[in-house]
Amino acid sequence: MIHVVKIGGNVIDDPRSLEMFCQAFSAMQGPRILVHGGGALGTRMQARLGIEPVRIEGRRVTDAETLKVVAMVYAGWCNKKIVSLLQAEGCPAIGLSGCDGNVICAARRAPIEIKGEMIDFGYVGDVDKDSVHVELLEGLLNMGFVPVLSPINHDGCGTLLNTNADTVASAVAAALGARLTVCFEKPGVLLDVNDPESVIPSLDPESYQLLKDQGKIADGMVPKLENAFQCLRDGARQVTIKQVSALLKPEAGTTVSL
Amino acid sequence: MIHVVKIGGNVIDDPRSLEMFCQAFSAMQGPRILVHGGGALGTRMQARLGIEPVRIEGRRVTDAETLKVVAMVYAGWCNKKIVSLLQAEGCPAIGLSGCDGNVICAARRAPIEIKGEMIDFGYVGDVDKDSVHVELLEGLLNMGFVPVLSPINHDGCGTLLNTNADTVASAVAAALGARLTVCFEKPGVLLDVNDPESVIPSLDPESYQLLKDQGKIADGMVPKLENAFQCLRDGARQVTIKQVSALLKPEAGTTVSL
Repeated sequence: MIHVVKIGGNVIDDPRSLEMFCQAFSAMQGPRILVHGGGALGTRMQARLGIEPVRIEGRRVTDAETLKVVAMVYAGWCNKKIVSLLQAEGCPAIGLSGCDGNVICAARRAPIEIKGEMIDFGYVGDVDKDSVHVELLEGLLNMGFVPVLSPINHDGCGTLLNTNADTVASAVAAALGARLTVCFEKPGVLLDVNDPESVIPSLDPESYQLLKDQGKIADGMVPKLENAFQCLRDGARQVTIKQVSALLKPEAGTTVSL
Repeated sequence: MIHVVKIGGNVIDDPRSLEMFCQAFSAMQGPRILVHGGGALGTRMQARLGIEPVRIEGRRVTDAETLKVVAMVYAGWCNKKIVSLLQAEGCPAIGLSGCDGNVICAARRAPIEIKGEMIDFGYVGDVDKDSVHVELLEGLLNMGFVPVLSPINHDGCGTLLNTNADTVASAVAAALGARLTVCFEKPGVLLDVNDPESVIPSLDPESYQLLKDQGKIADGMVPKLENAFQCLRDGARQVTIKQVSALLKPEAGTTVSL
């Protein structure tokens, strides 16, 4: 089975974590795909360039300048740095953004009405499992390559779009009927948020609903788990949420299934 | 025969030129590869970030900060912008930097002695035809893709290196036994530098030597043509120097052969 792994800023921003992750990911066996997010370098680069983050009603707007920065940082520096580190570990990585071979074609988010005004959030795209060029990914996997996907995608009409890396990872896992591992800062979904030993090893819709009703699963974990269940309903085989240091431990983390 | 096309800053820096180039390149037939240079955006981005260009004895040093900027600009923004424009024209482009699938593994330039001191030029690499992963490029071409190569390569040990796009294009053309078209700001090699109509349609080593001895080929054209002859000796079939607007005119420009 194809394995999709997603890493975010907590891995990318720390050179030592990134190096350890690349060693572990290279040691994994079988066909696999890495999806990475952006991390703090994008925000730092924006600040250094004097680009003021634009927010409307608390939501970030990706204007043309911001798009250029995130494309440079995520598709350029982050993607190529990760690929070069994986190559150095003997992992046959190949870095791709959505435009490359049309691997992911995103839909630009339509302007939405907020308080009677139409608000355009700029160069932001949404992806789903139909956005994914399955034949290309399977072709590269069959050639022995390990695709490394940045969250910069395109609309097919010459425009790059910034997308959410979690959604990209879910869409890819769903489209390929793959297992998905989401690297998380905590060891998994915790029964007691203050006790890292209290990892819930597995969740299905029933046990999730029960724990949610009891208030034991709350806050940020709710949308994360709703997304995991949606990803499974869309075609993924299994979703595991775990710490990056436990990547090679199959029993670690919380495994979500239907 | 595979056709390698190289474009530089004069095409990349001007949105209208880049769009026209992408239309023409997409209209070309047969297996082909695009190699692009950097352009002025890298220098502009460096200036905006307050990074002072370091030069020793007139030669640019690529320090860690500069490498990050050129990787962001060339492998990120330029490469992905070009690929998304080509995709919009129906050209199945796939953007790659050297680390991607290990397509080009460069050798870091060794420190050289200048006036008794060893000078390290930093993250700069050199490539030759043995640097090129021929099977990968041929595999992608056979799958119908059009590789688009940035001048950011890697050393195979986890370090990215900035390389010269002209050299990359020559190395790729030589390794693949391809024809190479170098897009140039002038219509070709001119007999009279002030007369754009005076294009020399073809050059071989003898006619080149004769015109050089007569002083009719001089200055910047000498290294350009020496490189073209070297590229042919290394295995390329034909080298043409022409204006980007003449990309689809087979008779335009100066064709160099042995």
